[in-house]
Amino acid sequence: MESESFYGVTLSEKEPIAQFDVPDIPEEYIVHSHKLIIKQISLGPDAKSGEFNVVQAETNINDDGEKKTVKIPIAVLKVGETRSLRPNVEFPNGSVTFKLVQGTGPVYVCGKAEMNFGEFDDGYINEDYTDEEEDSELEFDEDAAPQTNGKSNKKK
Amino acid sequence: MESESFYGVTLSEKEPIAQFDVPDIPEEYIVHSHKLIIKQISLGPDAKSGEFNVVQAETNINDDGEKKTVKIPIAVLKVGETRSLRPNVEFPNGSVTFKLVQGTGPVYVCGKAEMNFGEFDDGYINEDYTDEEEDSELEFDEDAAPQTNGKSNKKK
Amino acid sequence: MESESFYGVTLSEKEPIAQFDVPDIPEEYIVHSHKLIIKQISLGPDAKSGEFNVVQAETNINDDGEKKTVKIPIAVLKVGETRSLRPNVEFPNGSVTFKLVQGTGPVYVCGKAEMNFGEFDDGYINEDYTDEEEDSELEFDEDAAPQTNGKSNKKK
Amino acid sequence: MESESFYGVTLSEKEPIAQFDVPDIPEEYIVHSHKLIIKQISLGPDAKSGEFNVVQAETNINDDGEKKTVKIPIAVLKVGETRSLRPNVEFPNGSVTFKLVQGTGPVYVCGKAEMNFGEFDDGYINEDYTDEEEDSELEFDEDAAPQTNGKSNKKK
Amino acid sequence: MESESFYGVTLSEKEPIAQFDVPDIPEEYIVHSHKLIIKQISLGPDAKSGEFNVVQAETNINDDGEKKTVKIPIAVLKVGETRSLRPNVEFPNGSVTFKLVQGTGPVYVCGKAEMNFGEFDDGYINEDYTDEEEDSELEFDEDAAPQTNGKSNKKK
Repeated sequence: MESESFYGVTLSEKEPIAQFDVPDIPEEYIVHSHKLIIKQISLGPDAKSGEFNVVQAETNINDDGEKKTVKIPIAVLKVGETRSLRPNVEFPNGSVTFKLVQGTGPVYVCGKAEMNFGEFDDGYINEDYTDEEEDSELEFDEDAAPQTNGKSNKKK
Repeated sequence: MESESFYGVTLSEKEPIAQFDVPDIPEEYIVHSHKLIIKQISLGPDAKSGEFNVVQAETNINDDGEKKTVKIPIAVLKVGETRSLRPNVEFPNGSVTFKLVQGTGPVYVCGKAEMNFGEFDDGYINEDYTDEEEDSELEFDEDAAPQTNGKSNKKK
Repeated sequence: MESESFYGVTLSEKEPIAQFDVPDIPEEYIVHSHKLIIKQISLGPDAKSGEFNVVQAETNINDDGEKKTVKIPIAVLKVGETRSLRPNVEFPNGSVTFKLVQGTGPVYVCGKAEMNFGEFDDGYINEDYTDEEEDSELEFDEDAAPQTNGKSNKKK
Repeated sequence: MESESFYGVTLSEKEPIAQFDVPDIPEEYIVHSHKLIIKQISLGPDAKSGEFNVVQAETNINDDGEKKTVKIPIAVLKVGETRSLRPNVEFPNGSVTFKLVQGTGPVYVCGKAEMNFGEFDDGYINEDYTDEEEDSELEFDEDAAPQTNGKSNKKK
Repeated sequence: MESESFYGVTLSEKEPIAQFDVPDIPEEYIVHSHKLIIKQISLGPDAKSGEFNVVQAETNINDDGEKKTVKIPIAVLKVGETRSLRPNVEFPNGSVTFKLVQGTGPVYVCGKAEMNFGEFDDGYINEDYTDEEEDSELEFDEDAAPQTNGKSNKKK
């Protein structure tokens, strides 16, 4: 099952941080994937002229088997030069923090949150996930459909 | 079944608001998902020089199980600076209101409306949806096809 | 079966109109969907400085069960301000007219035409379409594949 | 089977033309589709100030059953005005020629080549294609997967 | 199984090179495809005014059966002219090197890494791949799911 939602936050001097996390869901579900896509970042009409506004993203990535934290600016905005950007970056790991590290805003961050989840006691899914966790430490987002077909065929 | 339609509205001082809702459809159908994607927002050639035109979107989102309303500018336009934008934002909840909160326009809003619907008395779909509604209050857009295959296989 | 084609037309003072329609296809085929996506609209190097060039799209949409015609500018271009745009708008209804309503061009309109069609005497497809037309006046683009699998299984 | 490749060519006064064709592949394969997508076209840092650089695409399209050749500029670049563009145009017909018809470059053309091919002696595919060629002169890109499933089911 | 990860590196005078390679994965897995998509490249707020910053990509492509190396700039940035770009180029061959060949940065490179992998001792997958390697030297990214279904059906 897939759930999509509009994502919109405003960063400013007073509220310079926005955190995106996997939401609480009912116990009988498990989240297969949870992704945030940032579509547009723009300065408000009342942003200060000549001031840089820099939005930094902080997220965990998987670098050759090791988890590490990346901090990188995803928007460098300035009235009269760059009013808005469409970075279109994706955070597939379910968790990311946006911080206005320079400037006073307001900065509008718009995007889309996508969640893919299933019932926890759904036999063949449990099985899949248990197997894979034994085999490997790699994290992955399941494109579950074709795989599921294969496994359920075996059970006939 | 999927239906797609071009979406185009003009916002101006006289008509500053445009509302997008799930359409009326014949009783025997149910709407699985209804999405609006905003592809481009641009100022007309006769927009006033130096005036900011700000288009605000108001929509409901699901924030950690709670429904709440988000209001956020999706376009900050100004002749000589930003004539047009391609925000590419998506409103998957079936309902959104656009309002020209600053400026006199004209502002052209173009996009695509997508609807996914099925027959209400379609047995396996009714069943799926009933099950899921009992299990959870979460809202979701079904990517119904592969799932449906799985469920109908079980019934053979 | 899906057919894709590059789409490119030049609008100018002499030829300000371009029409896009469902093509003639052999009698034994029916067109399931026919879509035009406008990827880029740009001014030629010899466009007049300071002149606005406005490209208007005219197409039919389905507004709450009623067909109505929409006319909206999809490109407002001006040398020294906006040389080119990527509106990325889609016209899924098979028919749209572009008109250079202001300016002298040349304006280059580039995109992609997509057609989805099948054999008319293809039993299960005929059946599907007849059923649905009886149930509803709604127009829709079929994502035929998963549905087709389901229906053909029934015939075994 | 699908093959993807990065595509990158530099156009300049000395080498103003780049041709993209269906590659030679082993005899036992047939190419189902072959597409080039142009993602970005940009001027080098040493391009001449104030000079227009115009990249023209020449390709065959299917216009209402007739093949015809289209020539249209897909990039009008000029230092200080338009340094780079992302036309995102697609050439699904397997063959296209890019020509620097104005300016001296260098112009960097980046994109992606996609090829979809199969084994020639693969029974059910031969059959599919033969049938269709008898029925129609229309060219199409097969979305082969779901169709193939259907046909192979019949053979059981 | 598909794995997605955010990709973000900073290029500067001190660290002008970033290399992207297929990661080490447990022995019992094989990598079907490994792709990097560059979404956005932008100059930091402290980049030098008037200085060109040029990011070059170096990767292997398959040109008519021959492997060859392509070097091409994918971003030409300059404060006051082009602060950021969204090249959206894809490197599907699993390996690419980015080099700041002109300028001192900082340049932020953001994107997405996608990996598609499976278990090595997974019978039907081994077989598929062995067959294909005997038939052809062509490299391809498998869209494995539908094909695999077809092949495994034959074995029943």
